[in-house]
Amino acid sequence: MENKVYVVGMGPGKPEMMSREADRILKECDTIIGYTVYVDLLRPSYPGKEFLTTPMTQETRRCEMAFEEAAKGKKVAMVCSGDAGVYGMSGLMMEVGEAYPGIEVKVVPGITAALSGGAVLGAPLTHDFAVVSLSDRLTPWETIEKRLRCAAEGDFCICLYNPASKGRPDHLKRACDILLEVIPGERLCGTVENIGREGEGAKLYTLSQLRDAQVNMFTTVFIGNSMTKEIGGRLVTPRGYRI
Amino acid sequence: MENKVYVVGMGPGKPEMMSREADRILKECDTIIGYTVYVDLLRPSYPGKEFLTTPMTQETRRCEMAFEEAAKGKKVAMVCSGDAGVYGMSGLMMEVGEAYPGIEVKVVPGITAALSGGAVLGAPLTHDFAVVSLSDRLTPWETIEKRLRCAAEGDFCICLYNPASKGRPDHLKRACDILLEVIPGERLCGTVENIGREGEGAKLYTLSQLRDAQVNMFTTVFIGNSMTKEIGGRLVTPRGYRI
Repeated sequence: MENKVYVVGMGPGKPEMMSREADRILKECDTIIGYTVYVDLLRPSYPGKEFLTTPMTQETRRCEMAFEEAAKGKKVAMVCSGDAGVYGMSGLMMEVGEAYPGIEVKVVPGITAALSGGAVLGAPLTHDFAVVSLSDRLTPWETIEKRLRCAAEGDFCICLYNPASKGRPDHLKRACDILLEVIPGERLCGTVENIGREGEGAKLYTLSQLRDAQVNMFTTVFIGNSMTKEIGGRLVTPRGYRI
Repeated sequence: MENKVYVVGMGPGKPEMMSREADRILKECDTIIGYTVYVDLLRPSYPGKEFLTTPMTQETRRCEMAFEEAAKGKKVAMVCSGDAGVYGMSGLMMEVGEAYPGIEVKVVPGITAALSGGAVLGAPLTHDFAVVSLSDRLTPWETIEKRLRCAAEGDFCICLYNPASKGRPDHLKRACDILLEVIPGERLCGTVENIGREGEGAKLYTLSQLRDAQVNMFTTVFIGNSMTKEIGGRLVTPRGYRI
């Protein structure tokens, strides 16, 4: 194939947390496309590029724009916060790309919030874990509830994305109520806000306390498994090494 | 605190897939400690450093060495393949670190195989997913079986780490048999070998076929959810956008 479009995971936001490969591709490309908030984070680091944005809910149009620009012969990067795949655009790019058979989609992974947020909290996700988004914009709430129950029954460490937004301020409370049917209220949990950006901060809770925690769309939530403990104010899930 | 030790996720192995932050810290440090195989991947890129290694099963000793070197005033990085947390050393470092209260553990995340392998296969983990290791070295097999069942019942995309090793060549077959109790045999799956290294390759299977796939300790396995499909030879899990 002649043309490629890149779907690039930019990590949590701090430019230094992007992979060197992602940075190189953004430097090489002509056009950077993404959701307005994330593109604005990149502008200062990549002068001279063409920046194209669409708001949230315009994801399909954003993908079409990427292919249209690539078809003109430009080197195009679609950027995603965190990873290119996990709640990112790589899947939709491949679906939309079926209409552009001459253009190959190349995926460049990035550090998703489960990893970057885990590093801020300590070491919550050292072993088997499940990631669940509480956004019901594209997923029925019943599916979300079922996944929460299954993750709790499997004693997975759980990482929750999108715990709240304007239209759904009580999703974390509802999720905790489901988890509390399986998991004891004293289970250790944590939240991380603004990972890799100004205002970064972590807090520890019990699951009962987490129910009433203040969260927003820039918060990532971690629920420990039955082995998770606190060490010096940090959330740590041991893997079972003998020490 | 005066002293810090860094636990650094180095990504899948290709130096360019490390974050710029991880690269900077390795360049700044005096001593790099890790499992022999991964340290050998780093040696050419970081000349002039002191490299210390211990074999697998010596993880606790490896952590103690990191703190002992840091206590001498050296800047020390403990490296892990993939992420610092996910099946990495950050948790054990915090446990061992309780004996070294003057030394702070700083975690530097990296791209774990679920993300880097997903990028090679296409876009399998675009939505809720579960990660399970099939290694029973530190986890009872019954726990692994339970997690597989729960992940299947929750219709999670599933990523399997450590699908085989010398002592346990049939773990993937046993895992597939459990998954097949819940998931139909035609469910799309994929494997990725040697992510970001020489010999990188991806293959698609059905779950029935995956049962007999050849895998080794450098293979990462992906099992799609009920929505996962193939697009142009790639494994893609749609998120439900209207296109």
